[in-house]
Parts: sequence; C-alpha cells; structure tokens
Amino acid sequence: MKAPELPIRVALLGAGIFARNAHLPTLVAHPSVFKLQAIYSRSEASASKVAELVPNDYLHGAPKVYFDQGENVDGERTLDALLSREDVDAVVICLPSATQIKVIQMALKHGKHVLSEKPVATGVQEGLQLVKDYENVLKTRDGGHLIWQVAENWRCEPAVIWASQLFSTLGNGRVRTFALTCYLETKKDNQYVKTGWRTGDGATLPGGFLMDGGVHWIAVLRAVVASAGWRVDRACAFGGLWLDYCAPMDFISGILRLRQGDGSQSETLPSGTVNMCFAASGKPFEISLTVVCESGTLYFQVKPDPIDGTRKYFVWWVAEGGEKVVEKTFGFNGIEEEFRTFAKAILRVPELPNVRNNEYGQGDLSPREALMDVTVIEALLDSAGVDGKPMDVPNMLVL
Amino acid sequence: MKAPELPIRVALLGAGIFARNAHLPTLVAHPSVFKLQAIYSRSEASASKVAELVPNDYLHGAPKVYFDQGENVDGERTLDALLSREDVDAVVICLPSATQIKVIQMALKHGKHVLSEKPVATGVQEGLQLVKDYENVLKTRDGGHLIWQVAENWRCEPAVIWASQLFSTLGNGRVRTFALTCYLETKKDNQYVKTGWRTGDGATLPGGFLMDGGVHWIAVLRAVVASAGWRVDRACAFGGLWLDYCAPMDFISGILRLRQGDGSQSETLPSGTVNMCFAASGKPFEISLTVVCESGTLYFQVKPDPIDGTRKYFVWWVAEGGEKVVEKTFGFNGIEEEFRTFAKAILRVPELPNVRNNEYGQGDLSPREALMDVTVIEALLDSAGVDGKPMDVPNMLVL
Repeated sequence: MKAPELPIRVALLGAGIFARNAHLPTLVAHPSVFKLQAIYSRSEASASKVAELVPNDYLHGAPKVYFDQGENVDGERTLDALLSREDVDAVVICLPSATQIKVIQMALKHGKHVLSEKPVATGVQEGLQLVKDYENVLKTRDGGHLIWQVAENWRCEPAVIWASQLFSTLGNGRVRTFALTCYLETKKDNQYVKTGWRTGDGATLPGGFLMDGGVHWIAVLRAVVASAGWRVDRACAFGGLWLDYCAPMDFISGILRLRQGDGSQSETLPSGTVNMCFAASGKPFEISLTVVCESGTLYFQVKPDPIDGTRKYFVWWVAEGGEKVVEKTFGFNGIEEEFRTFAKAILRVPELPNVRNNEYGQGDLSPREALMDVTVIEALLDSAGVDGKPMDVPNMLVL
Repeated sequence: MKAPELPIRVALLGAGIFARNAHLPTLVAHPSVFKLQAIYSRSEASASKVAELVPNDYLHGAPKVYFDQGENVDGERTLDALLSREDVDAVVICLPSATQIKVIQMALKHGKHVLSEKPVATGVQEGLQLVKDYENVLKTRDGGHLIWQVAENWRCEPAVIWASQLFSTLGNGRVRTFALTCYLETKKDNQYVKTGWRTGDGATLPGGFLMDGGVHWIAVLRAVVASAGWRVDRACAFGGLWLDYCAPMDFISGILRLRQGDGSQSETLPSGTVNMCFAASGKPFEISLTVVCESGTLYFQVKPDPIDGTRKYFVWWVAEGGEKVVEKTFGFNGIEEEFRTFAKAILRVPELPNVRNNEYGQGDLSPREALMDVTVIEALLDSAGVDGKPMDVPNMLVL
C-alpha cells in the first residue's frame, strides 16, 4: 500500500456532539489536507444533519451521506458500502464507545486508516484484543502502513506537551508526588448527559463520565510522567454516585503509584492523588495537575481566563524556594493537532506542507497509549468497587 | 476540688522550640489569667534558657527552674518536686512525644490540670490507654473537674472554626468529596529536623513529620466535617521517603472515606484525597483543603499573604455556578485561643473576665479528638506500609 497523496480522502463516521462540533469543522477547515468524501450515521436524518454543516463553498463539494437505518436503505449507502469505496483513504470514527469498537475493526479490515475517539474501548480486555488484532494482523498486511490512532486530543495539546518538557528538563523527571484534581458541575441538561449512552439508566459505558472524561486527564498525567519513563503501577480508590443522571459513578478519590516502565527504580516509588468529581457544585470546570519534583514543582491548570473568560491552559514551573520561573498560557489546540498527527502518519511525512509548524512536538496517539489510560481508570473503578482494595495496573504498553 | 481562682498558677514543662516561641510568650502575655510559677526541662541549662525569656518586668516575678539532670540535682528541684507544689494548679507540657505521655500521667496523678502538646501519643494504643485512665480514674477522683486538654492549636484557629461553620450552614454538611494537600519544603537545617526526635536516625516519633505535622491538618479536615457528624471510616495510602533527614517517611498519598458517626448514612459515602509531602521542592509552605458540597465548595488555604508576606488563613465559599459568596482572611490565633480554652475549662466559666470576646467559638481540645487525629494518620501510615491495603479507622470517640 503506498501512502495516499494530499488531500487525504476521509469519511466521518458519527453524528454526535463531538462529530458536529469538533471533527467536522476541523476536517473542512483544512481542504488542502483532507477531502471530506462521506458522512455516516446510523440514521439518515442525523447523517444529513451533519452534512448540512459543511459550508456551501466547501472546496470539495458536498459529502455523500451513508446510514444503516430506515425503510428504504439503498444498498449503496450502508456503512459497508462506504468502507468499500476505493476513493476513501481514511475514516474518522466518533460513535458511542460500545458501538465504536466493531466499526474500528470493520474499517481496518477494509484497509482504511482510522482515527477513533477515546476511550479506545469500554474496557481493558476488549481494547487489548483489538489492539493485538491490529498489531498482529491488520496493520502488517499492507507492509505495516495501515494507521490506527486514537483521538486523545489532550495528549496533543501544546500545553500538555510543554508541561511534559518542563517535567523532563527543569524537573529532570524526578517526581516525588503529584495531585490531579478534576471538578465539574454537571447539570441535568448537560449535553453529554443527554446523549444517554455515557451515563444514566441506559448507559453503555462502564464508569460513565469517569471513563469518558477521566481518560483525558489520566492522559495528561501519563503524558507528563511518561516523558521520564514513569508508568502507573498500582491504584486504590473510593467512589460513588451523587447525581442519578450521572450513573453509574460520578466521583472517585484515588491514589496512584508510579514505577519506572523498564523495571529500574529507586527504593522510593513516587505516588500521588487523583480526585475526580462530576458532581462538584461550585466548580463549573476545573482541572489541575501539580507535580512535585526534586528540583521544583510543575503546575498545569485548566480554567477560565480571568481576562476574557474563555477556557485556557495555564502551565508554570516553580523552583526550589518558591520562585516562579517560567509560565505560559495556551488555548485549546488539541483537536487540530490530533488531525495533523493523523495526517502525518498516513502520509509518512515529518511535517505537512503549507501548514504552520508546531513548535511543541506531537502527542502519541497509538492505541496502546489510549488503552493505558483506560487501564488506569478501570483500576480505579475496580478498586472503588471493592472498598479501596489495591489494584495492580498492568503495563499495557508491553502486554 | 474547687475551681482555681485567677490567675491560674502554671508550670511550663519543656524547653523546646514551641515552648520557647509559643507557650512561654502566650503565658507571660496574659498575667491576669496565668501566673507562671515554674519551668521544667530535663537539663538545668535548657530550663534556665527558657526562664531567661521571661521579661524582667513580668508581673509575677521570675519562675523557679526545675530539672532532672546534672550532678548536683537538688531534691527540691526535680519534676516530682514541682508537681508536688500546692501552689501550682496546672501544667503546660511541651516535650518530645515519646517522653510526654509519662509526664502527662504523672501530672494528672498529682492532680494538676494538663495542657499537653500534640500528638496526644505516639500511637493509638498508647493514647487510648491513657485517655481511658484519665476518664475512668484520674478525671473523676476530684469530682470530674481535673482537666486534660491537648493543644491542637489548629482546631482553635478562628479560621478553622469559621470554615466549619460555613460547611454546616452554607454547605448543610453535605460533603461530596474533598482534597487536602499539605506541601512543605524541608531543608536539612530546618529547626524541627534539628530536634532529632521527630525525624532522622534517632527519631522516636512513628511517622515523623507526617505524624507531627499531619495531625494538625487532619484536625482541620475533621473539625470541618465533624461539624455535620462525619467521621473518617476507612483509609488507603502509598508513601515513602525522599529526604534521609526526614526519615522514616516524608510523603504520603492517601484517600479517606467518611461515614456518619452515629451510623446513619446515605447509600453514597463521601471520600476524598490527602496528599502530604515534606519534600515538596518549590512549595515552602502550602496547606489547602477543598470541600465540595451539594450546594457549593468550601476553600481553606494557608499561604503567604500576597501583600505583606506573612502566613495567613484564607477561607471562602463558592456557590453553585461558581460565584464566590463569602471570604475572610485570618491571622494565626490558635495558640492564644487554645490557652484561653484551657483556662476557661479550669475556671469552669463560659468566658474569661477582662479579655476580648472571641466571636468564632472554641475548638474541642479533648484528648479523644486529638487521639482521633492520630488514629487517622496511623491508618494512613499503616496502609502505606502494606502497599495501599485499606485500613478501617476505629471511632476513637466512642471506644
């Protein structure tokens, strides 16, 4: 299989909030890189609704709509028909987690490059099986060039990458302890509550928001500490549910212990706390990671900018003695960066032509990294289910 | 035993940092309440050094010096001789934790009221035995009026009492989760490191700084949540040692679960995180407690005042939606308040005459409360010693 040429011919599979608000706008904003060929959803109505969001003056014209429901399904407009198109190089998948894994597998079997939404799977075992299938069979059959990446946009955020760099340079990677706190005030009319599959009576995602949102913030923690070889080794947690519509669980208080991924280690193992609560009255949205190192402390915070009120990333380093040394503020660029990363992998190029360079480097969107995020959340959830019993966290990067 | 009259005739037992910098100045600053009669230390030199700190114009004259070491110990100047004096009503004890418990017992047996430093004991079993001895025998023999209080000054801080009041009023006591973080950057020449008994090779205090300092901050957490009947029920932790001179352990990452003290409870039990690190490079001194409630979030922070650089308490409440509702800043008043509380208990009066009124109420200095703080720390340390295995936290208030 030779590398596709620009623009990469893409289909968008999914018509949910993120497909409409993040994926579609990003795809159509870069017509020199992506050519949006098709949009699929289970129902014609929802697929068409997304297609309507494509601007009338879109360089590549209107994408064709595919779907699997309705009385008059045209055999040429099913998902299978879409995946059989030779003029589609890649698919961007944004479906409910429980549905998504089968679609990922289908797309890979059709030889399409895949960018799929996080969490990579609804559980570790399911995810590991697909990752192994991909690595052992699907990926290799065309010379090892079939790309599957998981759209963990937080791992692509320049703010996160810069935080990792501060940790491994100013901090020498010598973490002593850390505290990750993630507070959200979730209203009953929250758009993600209303999806139905994430939380509540009809939820199909184990862990609900703690999995759906939690993988993002565990990805941040992991991206930072992994830059110096640390992996999560053991977890304990308590947790529970305050808001019925956030079932099965909307808060978790956990501890994580770190270990060097290669088995080398000092006698003392760093550990820290993880506090996630989606029932955080008084805290509309606040993510904070503090990493205390031998030589100072790294701060990473997401909160409204005090000046313009928009959500921003604040990253800074405080040296021994308490002096703030460096500080940067970042906007949200992770979605664009993850699409850029996906495109570069498909094209097998270090940089895209005619696109601004990104000085911060790129995030690792491999399915194994995404699976590791799920593994940590699953360990916390499992521990919370048995009153805090410690859970060993398997190293999904090598299993 | 009838209540002593003003001024209460007091002996100070101990010549360490806190005796010199906190207890002695507080005693001599209130000559209408306390008459400092005597100062005891193991060596004559250290006892005399403290006595020299008493101002020349002290209303009650120079206190007599007592000690138990030296070749020419006068039988009339031993600790036993001091405790036999009929003109001493009360003792303030500020000795190394491992030494202190025997002195507390001696003083109580001599019928002296006791204010002893925290931690109440070096371990739960030792502490519980003394508490029971006190309650069952010592306290009752003079009509139940012999006072023993533990000088947990943080529980007396107006800032802590006001935080408790915010929690039980604006928060209705409905805690969902909490995060307690305590970071200190401990240098090798730290005055408490140099005491030798707290940490390092010669330490006699299990848990070192995590016990010595940790009881303060667990006292804050407990004072706040106990105002609505919550007690700590279960604990898990990881921990270790980064700085040899802070041995045996200088950081701990823990989780605590709460339960209603009377056994009543909702299906969901609140839980939160506790992160204490005395090897926190870049964080000279920073204590923060966040209590997320059903109706908003309580913040309690100790940090340098941005204006004058002095250490202050900042307490505020943020209502649902994120609006800051009330906010107060407090100085450190806990030492003075704990002495006031001790004096009122001895005199059996609701307020002291000729002293300013305290609008915030008083902290509970009972040995059982102090023992409960030790119990929580011990559970965290025990769990950290066995890789995070959960520890049930016994209810020391009723055992």
